[in-house]
Amino acid sequence: MICMASSQAFKYEKIADDIDHLIEVGAFKPGDQIPSVREMSRQRDVSISTVLQAYYLLEARGLILARPRSGFYVRSDMPSDLPEPEISSPAPDPTQVSMRELISMVVHTESVAPDLIQLGVAHPNPSLAATKELNRTLTSVARRLGDAGGMYDYPPGCEELRRQIARRSLVSGCSLAPDEILITSGCSESVNICLRAVCGPGDVVAIESPICFDALQTLEAVGVQALEIPTHPRHGISLDALQFALEHNDVSACVVISNFNNPLGSCIPDDRKRDLVDLITKHQVPLIENDIFGELYFDDSRPSVAKAYDKEGLVMLCSSFSKSLCPGYRVGWLVPGRFYETCEWLKYTSSLAAPTLSEYAIAEFIGGGGYHPYLRRTRTIYKRQVSAMSQAVGRFFPDETKLTRPAGGFLLWVELPKTVDSLVLHKQALEAGIAITPGHLFSATNQYPNFVRLNAANWSEEGEWAIERLGWLIERLA
Amino acid sequence: MICMASSQAFKYEKIADDIDHLIEVGAFKPGDQIPSVREMSRQRDVSISTVLQAYYLLEARGLILARPRSGFYVRSDMPSDLPEPEISSPAPDPTQVSMRELISMVVHTESVAPDLIQLGVAHPNPSLAATKELNRTLTSVARRLGDAGGMYDYPPGCEELRRQIARRSLVSGCSLAPDEILITSGCSESVNICLRAVCGPGDVVAIESPICFDALQTLEAVGVQALEIPTHPRHGISLDALQFALEHNDVSACVVISNFNNPLGSCIPDDRKRDLVDLITKHQVPLIENDIFGELYFDDSRPSVAKAYDKEGLVMLCSSFSKSLCPGYRVGWLVPGRFYETCEWLKYTSSLAAPTLSEYAIAEFIGGGGYHPYLRRTRTIYKRQVSAMSQAVGRFFPDETKLTRPAGGFLLWVELPKTVDSLVLHKQALEAGIAITPGHLFSATNQYPNFVRLNAANWSEEGEWAIERLGWLIERLA
Repeated sequence: MICMASSQAFKYEKIADDIDHLIEVGAFKPGDQIPSVREMSRQRDVSISTVLQAYYLLEARGLILARPRSGFYVRSDMPSDLPEPEISSPAPDPTQVSMRELISMVVHTESVAPDLIQLGVAHPNPSLAATKELNRTLTSVARRLGDAGGMYDYPPGCEELRRQIARRSLVSGCSLAPDEILITSGCSESVNICLRAVCGPGDVVAIESPICFDALQTLEAVGVQALEIPTHPRHGISLDALQFALEHNDVSACVVISNFNNPLGSCIPDDRKRDLVDLITKHQVPLIENDIFGELYFDDSRPSVAKAYDKEGLVMLCSSFSKSLCPGYRVGWLVPGRFYETCEWLKYTSSLAAPTLSEYAIAEFIGGGGYHPYLRRTRTIYKRQVSAMSQAVGRFFPDETKLTRPAGGFLLWVELPKTVDSLVLHKQALEAGIAITPGHLFSATNQYPNFVRLNAANWSEEGEWAIERLGWLIERLA
Repeated sequence: MICMASSQAFKYEKIADDIDHLIEVGAFKPGDQIPSVREMSRQRDVSISTVLQAYYLLEARGLILARPRSGFYVRSDMPSDLPEPEISSPAPDPTQVSMRELISMVVHTESVAPDLIQLGVAHPNPSLAATKELNRTLTSVARRLGDAGGMYDYPPGCEELRRQIARRSLVSGCSLAPDEILITSGCSESVNICLRAVCGPGDVVAIESPICFDALQTLEAVGVQALEIPTHPRHGISLDALQFALEHNDVSACVVISNFNNPLGSCIPDDRKRDLVDLITKHQVPLIENDIFGELYFDDSRPSVAKAYDKEGLVMLCSSFSKSLCPGYRVGWLVPGRFYETCEWLKYTSSLAAPTLSEYAIAEFIGGGGYHPYLRRTRTIYKRQVSAMSQAVGRFFPDETKLTRPAGGFLLWVELPKTVDSLVLHKQALEAGIAITPGHLFSATNQYPNFVRLNAANWSEEGEWAIERLGWLIERLA
């Protein structure tokens, strides 16, 4: 359209470019309203229609969004310009997991540094968490239960809570019965129980790579070998690679975080979840499915769980309320399929029962209708914050940086220039008062020394400063 | 004193015998006041000094007690006339533990029978538990902590609670530092963590016999072999037998409930605790010491823990607030000695963290001075109830019955005539609406088929009826 380069066209493109630049440098942030059409028309002394043309162009570029009767806003789901990391390609052989010292070292270094800007640990945002409402519910539940609220609530645990979890399972494609569900003391306990139910020391377990170090630690505690499977940053575990692994190794179980993997944010597409279940069913290998981030989706509807396609009871679905509601209550659950009895017994021997009042309070909170609007609010905020952090990374990290585009959760996985050792960066960042999680912690075979995991759940002005500072440290290391 | 058989002597002996009989048949119960001296003098038309002579005789027989300015009362710590069981003599070889099916069967049979008189499971009395006060504390703590109360509280757990536990350790002969203590989600988890810290599948673990089936299940879940050691019904594990076992087996750990063993109620005398620690230290075998009943002593002072004599960090002290305060809060602890780091890491991988509000509420309850008077009250009641149940067993069970004389806790261990199968009795008792725990559950090698464990914590009129009914069932089976 070179012939269109009239003075009018020049004007509206100039306006669009200017605003584009202001968004890029963070003067306008995701969710911010840009000047109204009328205001811009006055400021730039151009016609209303010129401004509209400029704004339509920005919309076409995916930068702004019109809200009816309100104006134009910077899109909050706008990805950064950075490319995504490639699919991972970990070592093809099983490895005995031995992460304990490294993880302890990283955790302990952080615990002695006070007042950190915490961009590392995968905590939900404490001020978003429904703690206050839950605590009120807890108080009223405690009064109602009286002495019973102080007694043991043995496995399978609070019936009303199991009923609520069963009802909610509909949106993830399941129709679970309350008596298929075991209440646990959190998702870590659920995964630990599953592993001990189906594996013994020395067994081989196929896992996504990268995967959260909590999972790796649990593998180590159970004494199994990890077989790391290539994993796509958006679509999760590679089924081809998994199939090859199952055909060439004696695999005792497979562990995936099916929705919004920690740290990738990857989500296995629903039809591929079906293929995954077909595959593990063919090989009769139990699938331990961690769905702890499943409720924190950014799209219009909740992704399903692999459990939804499970016909033979081979999928062991693990979850908890720790990312989506309140970690301190220590309530999770487990749908162990054909391994129900063993898992119930292992729960009994591992910590007897879940905390009674916590269970009943969460059941009442969900039953009373509090969970749904709370989740809706939380999803919107996390989506906006993940986008804002992505853009900050795009602005302040070196050009070679690669960045995931999670469709849920609150985590980002960042690939830095090859020369950057993220353990060195971690140390320097701590000295600058910033905590990140080094990539070394996400593989049993140290596949990700130049990656870091960032948590956007607590995003703030301070976070933006921290990302800028990190960018500066990385430039020096690169 | 045959020459003393005057009419006066006859009179006071007759009075004493009559009251003795009324106590024996339960017309006067432990703690009841018997008629005042004046009243008895009037009723029987004898002198005050004759009645006093009668009452002194009853005192000498150990049946009643004078309370200054109040009168005479039936002793509440009066044992029954039944003899105690002998020291146990389990099989001398290690056995792979395989109790799961039997325990599940017993537990599930009970769970389907509603409205049982529960004399089986080792629960504390819900209406004695400090649940209401604790819940009030929880509410105020929740308000004070705000958002932080909903977040993870990672190992080692709440510092204020560890400080309170450290302070209380003084009365059990220790001087623990808060940073030697790990908060757990209950004593079962503590024991599970200890076992996994020092044993692997197939290892041999020396245990008291009989021992609570929770411990046996944990051994089974960890996959170790149980080596059952003869245990005295009052003084606990036989050190001679343990020494022999340590000399002739490759033992990886030793597990004892040092104070008020479940089910025996045995308490290892303090000087023998020292010998026990010397013994395991000589052999460099870790001692997993469960002290969950330690606060519920009947004598004037708390027995010490073996940990108090531990110079090399080989004793791993496990406990919780579940028997002494509130099981539903799911808070226990662990003093792992030289295995601290491994145990902290295992806590992390097994259930991440203890419930935050529970920890802080218990810390505040103890710190605020509520725990001490609560325990004093509770001990008195359990002591009275154990005595009352003992006497009921003495009245209603066959003469060949043998019965423990616990000096703390709330459990009784009853040896029935050899011909009585306690699993059959369990079934018949359930049909009569009464739950007991069959002796089969307290040994990996079925040493106690004619024993039952009874729980006196919930003693009531109803309990007395249940004991009478059980006695009748036993007579038929004997």
